[in-house]
Amino acid sequence: MTNMMPHWLDKRADLTPNHIAIQQPFKDPITFIELKTKAKSLAKRLSSAGVSLGSRVGVYSPNSAEMVVVLHSLSYLGAVAVLINTRLSTSEVSHQLTDANVSLLLTSDEASGACQSIVQSLASPISLYSFSDVWRLGEKETNLRTEIDLNAPFTIIYTSGTTGFPKGVVHTYGNHWWSAISSALNLGLDVNEKWLAALPLFHVGGLSILLKSCIYGMTVYLLEKFDVEAVHHAIMNEGVTIASVVSVMLDRLLQWLQSEYYPSTFRCMLLGGGPAPKPLLERAAQANVPVFQTYGMTETSSQIATLSPNNALDKLGSAGKALFPAQLKIINENGNEQPAFVYGEIYVKGPMVTNGYFHNEDANKRSFHNGWLATGDIGYFDEDGFLYVVDRRKDLIISGGENIYPAEIESVLLGMEGVEEAGVTKKADEKWGSVPIAFLVRSDTKLTEEQVLAFCHAKLANYKIPKEIYFVDTLPRNASNKLVRHKLTRFIPK
Amino acid sequence: MTNMMPHWLDKRADLTPNHIAIQQPFKDPITFIELKTKAKSLAKRLSSAGVSLGSRVGVYSPNSAEMVVVLHSLSYLGAVAVLINTRLSTSEVSHQLTDANVSLLLTSDEASGACQSIVQSLASPISLYSFSDVWRLGEKETNLRTEIDLNAPFTIIYTSGTTGFPKGVVHTYGNHWWSAISSALNLGLDVNEKWLAALPLFHVGGLSILLKSCIYGMTVYLLEKFDVEAVHHAIMNEGVTIASVVSVMLDRLLQWLQSEYYPSTFRCMLLGGGPAPKPLLERAAQANVPVFQTYGMTETSSQIATLSPNNALDKLGSAGKALFPAQLKIINENGNEQPAFVYGEIYVKGPMVTNGYFHNEDANKRSFHNGWLATGDIGYFDEDGFLYVVDRRKDLIISGGENIYPAEIESVLLGMEGVEEAGVTKKADEKWGSVPIAFLVRSDTKLTEEQVLAFCHAKLANYKIPKEIYFVDTLPRNASNKLVRHKLTRFIPK
Repeated sequence: MTNMMPHWLDKRADLTPNHIAIQQPFKDPITFIELKTKAKSLAKRLSSAGVSLGSRVGVYSPNSAEMVVVLHSLSYLGAVAVLINTRLSTSEVSHQLTDANVSLLLTSDEASGACQSIVQSLASPISLYSFSDVWRLGEKETNLRTEIDLNAPFTIIYTSGTTGFPKGVVHTYGNHWWSAISSALNLGLDVNEKWLAALPLFHVGGLSILLKSCIYGMTVYLLEKFDVEAVHHAIMNEGVTIASVVSVMLDRLLQWLQSEYYPSTFRCMLLGGGPAPKPLLERAAQANVPVFQTYGMTETSSQIATLSPNNALDKLGSAGKALFPAQLKIINENGNEQPAFVYGEIYVKGPMVTNGYFHNEDANKRSFHNGWLATGDIGYFDEDGFLYVVDRRKDLIISGGENIYPAEIESVLLGMEGVEEAGVTKKADEKWGSVPIAFLVRSDTKLTEEQVLAFCHAKLANYKIPKEIYFVDTLPRNASNKLVRHKLTRFIPK
Repeated sequence: MTNMMPHWLDKRADLTPNHIAIQQPFKDPITFIELKTKAKSLAKRLSSAGVSLGSRVGVYSPNSAEMVVVLHSLSYLGAVAVLINTRLSTSEVSHQLTDANVSLLLTSDEASGACQSIVQSLASPISLYSFSDVWRLGEKETNLRTEIDLNAPFTIIYTSGTTGFPKGVVHTYGNHWWSAISSALNLGLDVNEKWLAALPLFHVGGLSILLKSCIYGMTVYLLEKFDVEAVHHAIMNEGVTIASVVSVMLDRLLQWLQSEYYPSTFRCMLLGGGPAPKPLLERAAQANVPVFQTYGMTETSSQIATLSPNNALDKLGSAGKALFPAQLKIINENGNEQPAFVYGEIYVKGPMVTNGYFHNEDANKRSFHNGWLATGDIGYFDEDGFLYVVDRRKDLIISGGENIYPAEIESVLLGMEGVEEAGVTKKADEKWGSVPIAFLVRSDTKLTEEQVLAFCHAKLANYKIPKEIYFVDTLPRNASNKLVRHKLTRFIPK
């Protein structure tokens, strides 16, 4: 059984050349043959810039058709795309570029100013090209790849770990392939499918839609970002059949929907990004919105478990069962499987699960056990084997679909002069689901909230900046002196 | 990227336990949970009979739900099913059982008499169990397999080669998996799919429907054999959406259909088993039957190329393009790729292609080149890259969907006393498409046609027995003294 297959975009453009690959509001649609032609031309220009097999290339861009072309062009060269979250701070991006040993950074034209500062902040400088810069280069005669090796790496996406240091999740072509196939086996596959992508393409949830498009021969309805009116319009009038959203998006869509109903051809609202509040799911059911709750993470190349709408209400709050080629188990501290209804750590296995973190033997040793990935998430099965995720990793804060790890913010705060101890936890928020709040023990009693926030602004993405700062005398700790984050909120003045 | 996944039937029974797996006329339907329960029980009984990991077990049966249970039960033990064509002669079956080193033969109850003679004809005897015999055994406590290794062998199916000696094609679980996935990417996948299996399950075309059923969660409408009235009824009244047929079946169905039309939910008549006559395709188009012409063989685990009905008429006679993960090329005698419209040998590559023939290094060396399989078939591409199969292997005779290799019949004839030379070729036949006819040079001039036919009856399946025998003085040969089969027909008296 070979691990090679034809290059996905070549094959797709051969099978259905005139099918629409990308549809965007107020723009010309792009067919698969056009996408292929552009991507191959861009690949030859990137070759002029020195990109070749195995190069790691940073991609810093909001969603756009140009970004899609860039990603496919990198695959024609066998280069690895390191996808950068554009909401990160300069120092966060610098860390990722350095850690992934990126040799060249590609950026959307609009973001090239921001990327200039990032590149200048690096210890060893790397080349920076805006997408337009690359198009101005000449095409270099290059042997573009005609086959894809399922075992070869295609993308690296950084994810914060419980230790607070972002780790680069390496996705092979095979991981993406199996993710797409597993999803199709679950949701079915229709020749008229149109999947809405309003999630950022630099997250695996958005990226996976792009690759499904190429593998299935499916149109992506691409939005630069989530905009409730644009998404509503696309579902109501543009033939969208599937949309990927996180809870905060679903909430806003339901508000917008009011007493209308989506057309019956809209068959799947794929809900990811952490456990959904039950009242939200009930509202969705009342509005006849076909919500599929999912469980997944960067390491699983998007969803690995999904609950179908048939079970949406009698299994309310469940993330369903593992997709066909995947497996889940719940493991206790002694490494044994837990019976139904008993909490434990969620372990996952399957061909869509990453082989490991980039150049991070320690993290790999901690996380992988006999082919299983220990997710760090806590969950349980019910009597029918349906998964319930209790805590999306211990203490994780999910804010508008973005993962925020308290330890990461704490380590920034502890880097500030005058801060002796720091504890971060979450607070419910109507708009974002949760937001981070911080508790500090000062060594310098003159330290102010304003100073702390200013320090955070320089180091952290906006969404990670604590929304409230409390100065306290001690932090709650357990017998082993470990911080007990869920007890922090008792310090909030009533 | 792991090669392991959960056992297919366990997983399917977990995801959709009450979905119908097998529907048959006048019988109770069988759900996936029932199929799993039966298969696991049977596996434990087979374990009592000594079947274990790696055992090669012959399966001799016409289509039946019992046969389906047997195949799944073997997978729970990690045993390899050697699927026997029930139309073969005793000596042909004996050869396959011996070549595959089969340790145990399982047979349908009705065929147990025939199998008794087969087993007795073997040089070293093997055990014979009818399906009922196995059900009478006790369950042995056995660790049934909970995972499937895509690289492990699951089935062996013998196919005649151009040299006339049948070769055992080994299919891994991965070959079958990729075949199912490739087909789904091409045909789409619907939750209400119902696929009619009237092809024998001992051929890969029939077998592949069974495995798709388990992987997709799809109902198989299973017939013991092709019966035009039963197939017509199933398509008209039983919700069948896809049916696999060969030309002779399509022809009879169209005759039966007359001025009726199939329901619009019947979306695919998958036509395999060799190039279809153009008048047949035209009649199908007139009758609004959605024919998908395919190209495939035992070695490719069923279809590897398919033509969609959109192209059925402007590409009449083409087998379409290679499925998504697969590749085709046309190679000339010097090993170079041929341009459009130039004939050459068809090479295939893809994860559904067998890794090789069982214990047959010579055949593997001849057939595999750098990951490509040389099919021996002759074909060409048109200007749009659509495949046309000119000759389904050089000189191959396809009779009612069965492959007949002249060399095999010739070698039998040459084994008869009084026969000095033998040449076999095909003759068009209204009912079967083609039939074999033989040309003999006698050393014994008293040899009669009756004697030759009697000899053949003892050695060959009925469909392989030459329908006409001609005694001639010499056979047409080329400069290298090789038989030129296509010139044989000039000896037919006008």
